[in-house]
Amino acid sequence: MLDWIETIDWTNLMIDIGKVTLKLIAIIIVYFIVKSIGKRAIIRLFNRKGNEMSTGRSKTLQSITLNIFTYFLMFIFIGIVLSLFNFDITTLIAGAGILGLAIGFGAQGLVSDVVTGFFILLEQQIDVGDYVTVAGKDGIVEEVGLRTTKIRGFDGTLHYVPNREITNVSNHSRGNMRALIDIGISYNDDIDHAIKVMQQVCDEVAANDENIMEGPDVLGVQAFGSSDVVIRVIGKTKNGEQFGVERTLRKAIKEALDQNGIEIPYPHQVNINKES
Amino acid sequence: MLDWIETIDWTNLMIDIGKVTLKLIAIIIVYFIVKSIGKRAIIRLFNRKGNEMSTGRSKTLQSITLNIFTYFLMFIFIGIVLSLFNFDITTLIAGAGILGLAIGFGAQGLVSDVVTGFFILLEQQIDVGDYVTVAGKDGIVEEVGLRTTKIRGFDGTLHYVPNREITNVSNHSRGNMRALIDIGISYNDDIDHAIKVMQQVCDEVAANDENIMEGPDVLGVQAFGSSDVVIRVIGKTKNGEQFGVERTLRKAIKEALDQNGIEIPYPHQVNINKES
Amino acid sequence: MLDWIETIDWTNLMIDIGKVTLKLIAIIIVYFIVKSIGKRAIIRLFNRKGNEMSTGRSKTLQSITLNIFTYFLMFIFIGIVLSLFNFDITTLIAGAGILGLAIGFGAQGLVSDVVTGFFILLEQQIDVGDYVTVAGKDGIVEEVGLRTTKIRGFDGTLHYVPNREITNVSNHSRGNMRALIDIGISYNDDIDHAIKVMQQVCDEVAANDENIMEGPDVLGVQAFGSSDVVIRVIGKTKNGEQFGVERTLRKAIKEALDQNGIEIPYPHQVNINKES
Amino acid sequence: MLDWIETIDWTNLMIDIGKVTLKLIAIIIVYFIVKSIGKRAIIRLFNRKGNEMSTGRSKTLQSITLNIFTYFLMFIFIGIVLSLFNFDITTLIAGAGILGLAIGFGAQGLVSDVVTGFFILLEQQIDVGDYVTVAGKDGIVEEVGLRTTKIRGFDGTLHYVPNREITNVSNHSRGNMRALIDIGISYNDDIDHAIKVMQQVCDEVAANDENIMEGPDVLGVQAFGSSDVVIRVIGKTKNGEQFGVERTLRKAIKEALDQNGIEIPYPHQVNINKES
Amino acid sequence: MLDWIETIDWTNLMIDIGKVTLKLIAIIIVYFIVKSIGKRAIIRLFNRKGNEMSTGRSKTLQSITLNIFTYFLMFIFIGIVLSLFNFDITTLIAGAGILGLAIGFGAQGLVSDVVTGFFILLEQQIDVGDYVTVAGKDGIVEEVGLRTTKIRGFDGTLHYVPNREITNVSNHSRGNMRALIDIGISYNDDIDHAIKVMQQVCDEVAANDENIMEGPDVLGVQAFGSSDVVIRVIGKTKNGEQFGVERTLRKAIKEALDQNGIEIPYPHQVNINKES
Amino acid sequence: MLDWIETIDWTNLMIDIGKVTLKLIAIIIVYFIVKSIGKRAIIRLFNRKGNEMSTGRSKTLQSITLNIFTYFLMFIFIGIVLSLFNFDITTLIAGAGILGLAIGFGAQGLVSDVVTGFFILLEQQIDVGDYVTVAGKDGIVEEVGLRTTKIRGFDGTLHYVPNREITNVSNHSRGNMRALIDIGISYNDDIDHAIKVMQQVCDEVAANDENIMEGPDVLGVQAFGSSDVVIRVIGKTKNGEQFGVERTLRKAIKEALDQNGIEIPYPHQVNINKES
Amino acid sequence: MLDWIETIDWTNLMIDIGKVTLKLIAIIIVYFIVKSIGKRAIIRLFNRKGNEMSTGRSKTLQSITLNIFTYFLMFIFIGIVLSLFNFDITTLIAGAGILGLAIGFGAQGLVSDVVTGFFILLEQQIDVGDYVTVAGKDGIVEEVGLRTTKIRGFDGTLHYVPNREITNVSNHSRGNMRALIDIGISYNDDIDHAIKVMQQVCDEVAANDENIMEGPDVLGVQAFGSSDVVIRVIGKTKNGEQFGVERTLRKAIKEALDQNGIEIPYPHQVNINKES
Repeated sequence: MLDWIETIDWTNLMIDIGKVTLKLIAIIIVYFIVKSIGKRAIIRLFNRKGNEMSTGRSKTLQSITLNIFTYFLMFIFIGIVLSLFNFDITTLIAGAGILGLAIGFGAQGLVSDVVTGFFILLEQQIDVGDYVTVAGKDGIVEEVGLRTTKIRGFDGTLHYVPNREITNVSNHSRGNMRALIDIGISYNDDIDHAIKVMQQVCDEVAANDENIMEGPDVLGVQAFGSSDVVIRVIGKTKNGEQFGVERTLRKAIKEALDQNGIEIPYPHQVNINKES
Repeated sequence: MLDWIETIDWTNLMIDIGKVTLKLIAIIIVYFIVKSIGKRAIIRLFNRKGNEMSTGRSKTLQSITLNIFTYFLMFIFIGIVLSLFNFDITTLIAGAGILGLAIGFGAQGLVSDVVTGFFILLEQQIDVGDYVTVAGKDGIVEEVGLRTTKIRGFDGTLHYVPNREITNVSNHSRGNMRALIDIGISYNDDIDHAIKVMQQVCDEVAANDENIMEGPDVLGVQAFGSSDVVIRVIGKTKNGEQFGVERTLRKAIKEALDQNGIEIPYPHQVNINKES
Repeated sequence: MLDWIETIDWTNLMIDIGKVTLKLIAIIIVYFIVKSIGKRAIIRLFNRKGNEMSTGRSKTLQSITLNIFTYFLMFIFIGIVLSLFNFDITTLIAGAGILGLAIGFGAQGLVSDVVTGFFILLEQQIDVGDYVTVAGKDGIVEEVGLRTTKIRGFDGTLHYVPNREITNVSNHSRGNMRALIDIGISYNDDIDHAIKVMQQVCDEVAANDENIMEGPDVLGVQAFGSSDVVIRVIGKTKNGEQFGVERTLRKAIKEALDQNGIEIPYPHQVNINKES
Repeated sequence: MLDWIETIDWTNLMIDIGKVTLKLIAIIIVYFIVKSIGKRAIIRLFNRKGNEMSTGRSKTLQSITLNIFTYFLMFIFIGIVLSLFNFDITTLIAGAGILGLAIGFGAQGLVSDVVTGFFILLEQQIDVGDYVTVAGKDGIVEEVGLRTTKIRGFDGTLHYVPNREITNVSNHSRGNMRALIDIGISYNDDIDHAIKVMQQVCDEVAANDENIMEGPDVLGVQAFGSSDVVIRVIGKTKNGEQFGVERTLRKAIKEALDQNGIEIPYPHQVNINKES
Repeated sequence: MLDWIETIDWTNLMIDIGKVTLKLIAIIIVYFIVKSIGKRAIIRLFNRKGNEMSTGRSKTLQSITLNIFTYFLMFIFIGIVLSLFNFDITTLIAGAGILGLAIGFGAQGLVSDVVTGFFILLEQQIDVGDYVTVAGKDGIVEEVGLRTTKIRGFDGTLHYVPNREITNVSNHSRGNMRALIDIGISYNDDIDHAIKVMQQVCDEVAANDENIMEGPDVLGVQAFGSSDVVIRVIGKTKNGEQFGVERTLRKAIKEALDQNGIEIPYPHQVNINKES
Repeated sequence: MLDWIETIDWTNLMIDIGKVTLKLIAIIIVYFIVKSIGKRAIIRLFNRKGNEMSTGRSKTLQSITLNIFTYFLMFIFIGIVLSLFNFDITTLIAGAGILGLAIGFGAQGLVSDVVTGFFILLEQQIDVGDYVTVAGKDGIVEEVGLRTTKIRGFDGTLHYVPNREITNVSNHSRGNMRALIDIGISYNDDIDHAIKVMQQVCDEVAANDENIMEGPDVLGVQAFGSSDVVIRVIGKTKNGEQFGVERTLRKAIKEALDQNGIEIPYPHQVNINKES
Repeated sequence: MLDWIETIDWTNLMIDIGKVTLKLIAIIIVYFIVKSIGKRAIIRLFNRKGNEMSTGRSKTLQSITLNIFTYFLMFIFIGIVLSLFNFDITTLIAGAGILGLAIGFGAQGLVSDVVTGFFILLEQQIDVGDYVTVAGKDGIVEEVGLRTTKIRGFDGTLHYVPNREITNVSNHSRGNMRALIDIGISYNDDIDHAIKVMQQVCDEVAANDENIMEGPDVLGVQAFGSSDVVIRVIGKTKNGEQFGVERTLRKAIKEALDQNGIEIPYPHQVNINKES
């Protein structure tokens, strides 16, 4: 029954095995060289750029990059080795065919999360503690993960936003903010007088409030409302202080207008009476 | 008729069978090694991370991961074995071609559900009993499944949300919540006086209500309405108590304003009468 | 002209035929084994899970699964057999190429319908007679098919909803429902008194109506309207009875408020008259 | 110059031709068998199901199915025959490559139309003369084609809707329809009295109008409007008669309320006059 | 240096050339047969169906179809001929790879335009001079091209609509149109009297205006407005005359109501005066 | 060490080189023939059609077409030559695999821009100086490029619109434009009288303004407003003059109505006073 | 054990190695030639076009192009070399299969960013300091990167916009801007008089304000409001000065109208009083 063993072409088999062994050794050597070069390149990359970012962020990015690189290399290495022994990897992939397609789509979302997360970290678009608007959610950033970013809404809700959902990032914690107030005065009031009064108030408030960086200045007549002439005031404040400054300004202007007899008018209507 | 049997090249056939047998044995060995290593890796992974999560959740995740791993491995194993016997698996896949494509798309939705469900469980974005907003549905989570999440709306409706529909998760049961009240007072009232009265009420309410964690504080003039000056009050409460605290505050502030003769004004209009 | 017949290498042909025959037999055996195992597995699966669902639904699901399994297996079997005779199936598929692509897309919708329908049945998201909201359509479920779900709208319209359109299912027939009433009282009325009166009414109604399961309770001041103070009442009712209970409560509260001289106010406006 | 003809291996050529001929005959036989079986299966399918649908619709569906089947089979047959003569069909397809891709996408829309049209006919979702809402178009169905459905809008416009645009079908011609009327009565009127009067009217109208199938019944207080208490009346009518019945009911109820001195109130407003 | 020429196996070369020549001749013959049959089939198709459409349209469609058919055939013919000489066409296609993909997508839009345009012409959904609504554009059709349809908006704007943008076609020039008028009468007026007056007007107008095909009829009480009882009038007019008829009817009804003392009421409001 | 050189089968090598050389020459010849024919065809095409378009536009289109043709041919030529030397081009493409896929998608947008731009130029949908609405942007066209179209908004903003964003083109500079005015007159005015007065004004304006091409005509009662009867006036003007004509007409009609004592009414309201 | 070494066909091996070496040399030479030619072409391209753009922008674009070119070439070079040694690159790619697919999609977004960014820079659509509207974000451009564009909103928020999100670019810093003011005057005022007064104001303002480039001119009656006749004023200003000019004009016109007794009217209403 085992006669067939003798008939095997041992010579050819030996040559085959020899060739494969040589190739295998070559591959392993190449694998370690590539791995070593890649690792050093990644580390150098992050150390060179390390000055610009916090050490924590830098470390996170470096370890993530190393992980991705290592897994990817290993994956390819196994693929090549397997193909040497004629366990054709395409069969393996094809065997995973339909399933793989489906998983691929699932994984796509994951990869999309990670890629976006990577660039958000790299470009420092978001820091923990920033007040941001992403994917329609307002709030303070609690955590920037590779897959998910956690944002604490102002009503206390915790939003889990998958990074792939983050396209435009609006960061409200980068530099001075604007304070803007629109005040409607009566059509009967003298505009010049009102502007003078309001500018005086603005100057006083600015003198007493160190959160104000620029202005506030009265710009002039912004619009004609149906019952009021709208005057706009604009200033710059320290980051995060804009709402407080706006509240202070509103109160101060309201009181000054009252003292100067300038009216903030209610809606007006002209009634023409007919008897039916 | 059966003469052809003699003409078969039995030697080559034997060699073929021998080769295949050897390969088969190799594959089976590899299969069991990979399976064993994979299983241990998964179990260790969940035990290492097990501290941070409830045992139930951990168990669920571990068994799900094991299942997926086992089925996937078996699928590939069968594919490789079949390809040994030249029942070409690609034929099989191709044979399933059009049908497969269609099924693949169907399965894609399923996989998408499972992948998302897996991460929702892993990252603990949702727990049973949480008050959440997902996919435009508000309510209390009744069940987080691998494919579907059940949410009980506040009107009693049961929402079945496929996990793939869950992108942003807004979880209202994670930490203290904000109580916010906007009160409009008359343009004729003294703003300082009104703020003082309201702050007193807030302090009294806070003293008597243990659900209040911070404040509530009167922030100041939030806006100029068409007939009222809007004053904003903000505080922090225990999770889930924000609506009750808001109701208590509203009633208390209303009564205090009444006692102090501060008006919550109706809409105003200035009528200028002309006779037609 | 037929001399060429003699030149055929009959020996090789015989061997070829022999090989093919052996393979064919092997395939047929495998086919029947797989079919038998698969069938038993499916039946066992449904009998094990059968306790949780109605027998009718279980039967439906089982026969559907068996059908799909059988057709799929037969499809692959034919593919393999054809490939044995070198009627290359890929040619067949490729021959169907462009057409196939198009059909594939068409079939995709169908498969998507069936897959979704399968899970809706399996997870019992919808039963005939349920009041549901799916794909923007409100109504009573008349039929849940594999491809289409029929929903009878409340105005009598029959909606045919392809299952693939069903993502979120909102089922209003699962458990008790909420009755919610917002009543606006005058700014001049005593809130405490109004709440007391309304709570009395609620208790009386609850005592006389067995459809009410919990409450109804007066929660307190929900909002300040432009002309009224809004008081909210919430209760739980038997499923489907919420609208009736709400109507009963509305009438009872209205009458009680009238008797106690508490006003449900019309919109208010303050008119300041100027002569032009 | 033609010496090469002699050098041809006529024997092999003959064998080749013989083989091809045999295959060809085999294919043709298979073709006719498959065609015949398929045709019979289709015809039987439609005759078995024929009871449930009109003969015209059944005939239409049967001939469509036969056409599709025949063209498809012929397409594959030609593909296989061509491949026998080594005019490789994949070259043909590949040659059509870019063009084919583009056409495929175009054809996809067509196939999508036909598939959807087929199911609309099969499931009888739409009949000529039905009042339906599909793809945002309201109207009476004039024609259901395989590619396009024609709907006559109520303003006389003819809408050509490609079947692929038809997802949800809302058919308003399947069963009894609801008549719903909301009547607002004054806050000063006695609700019980109003309901009694309205119910009497409903009963009278129902007695005289054979288009009314159920009710109409006065349900009770549906809502508190800003100036009126809304009472809802609901009934069932024969299909298509709901608008007429609603008009009759509206007129009758209006007249009855007038006779009983129950007011349908105009918007109310409380004016508080201040002199400026 | 040219010794190698002698070593060529001239015999085999000759055979090869001979075979190729034979194949080439066969292909050319097939090409012309297919072309001839195809052309005749197309022409016959259009002549058979030619009765139903204008000769111009028929000619256009026939020449378009012939063009597409010829180009397509030539494309495949060149592909097959090239593959005979082993200038592998797939290389050519692959060489065009990335570029081809991109072009394919571009061409896809073009093909989509042409396919849709073809069916719009074939099914006569649009004729030059029709008043249509397609892709959100209202207007008169100026030209239906294979790629673009030109629509002249009523304000004089010329809209170029790519055919692929045309999904639903709403053609307002196919059959009689509806004239619909809603008239609000006072709550104090007698509904029966008003309906009688309006019906008389309708009958008079219909008698004098030959553009009116059906009605117009007074349907009854369509709705209760906040200040008026809405009466609906509906009629049918010749295509394109609906707006003129509506204007005539509006004027006539207004004048008749004035003469009969029936009021078209202004918005009403009940004012309850309080002194502050 | 170099013994192996002798063992080479020089004869076969020579034959191979000879064959390749022959093929190369053949390809080059074909290349130049195709290029020459293609160029001439393109030039002739543009000269034949050149009458209908400006020389500038024709030149632009011709040079673009020549460029695309030349690059495409060169691309294929290089591909075929490379494949002759067994530097398999598919390897090259595959080597570019993932990168290529990504670039392909990027290029797709570019190609889409160019294709759309080409047709916009060819069909003269847009000319520099036209007033158009494309992709939601209103304005005057400043430049139509192959990739981007520049539109100067009326507020001075310069919009860069990628051509792929241009689907529907609404060109407001093609032919006469409509002037449309809706005037509301009092319910108490005589409609016939008002129409007569307005028509007189229209005729006078038309007589004095050469920008008016047709009408303007008073159409009749367009609608019943809540306080006015709306009369519509329509005319045709030279392109671009519609806004000026509308302003002239509005002023003239207003003045004529004033002179004739016809009222353009303010909003009316009927007040029913109740004492609370 | 090592006997097999002797049995190797050293001659063939040598020939193989020789061939590979020759090919390798050829490839390397080609690589350097292509690289050198490509580099020069790119540099020449940017120097030729360099006049039109700032040197900084030109340098940036040149280095980006060189980088992309170099990486791409190196990628293909490695692929070809690897394929020489039969480490089949498709295996490598296939080995990366599923992962690669996912990464490809991720990279696609990146490439899309870079391609769009490249053209934005090349076509100078955006410069740092421009006031633009892109992707729904208004603001001043702070940085145009290859992947992300930073825009500083007017409220101080920093928007990070991925370039792929930038489709239409609306640049408000390219040329003169329009100042537009709509003023409503009373129906009782003389339109001619009002226009004369307003034109005088415009001329005076234009004389004193060097930011005004054209006009401003009073166009005439733009619309009939419910209570006012709307007069439109339009002018051209230096870029960025439009808002200031509008404010100046508004104030000046308001004051002039006041002096001339022309009324900017409040909303009007005709009240018809009925006693209930």
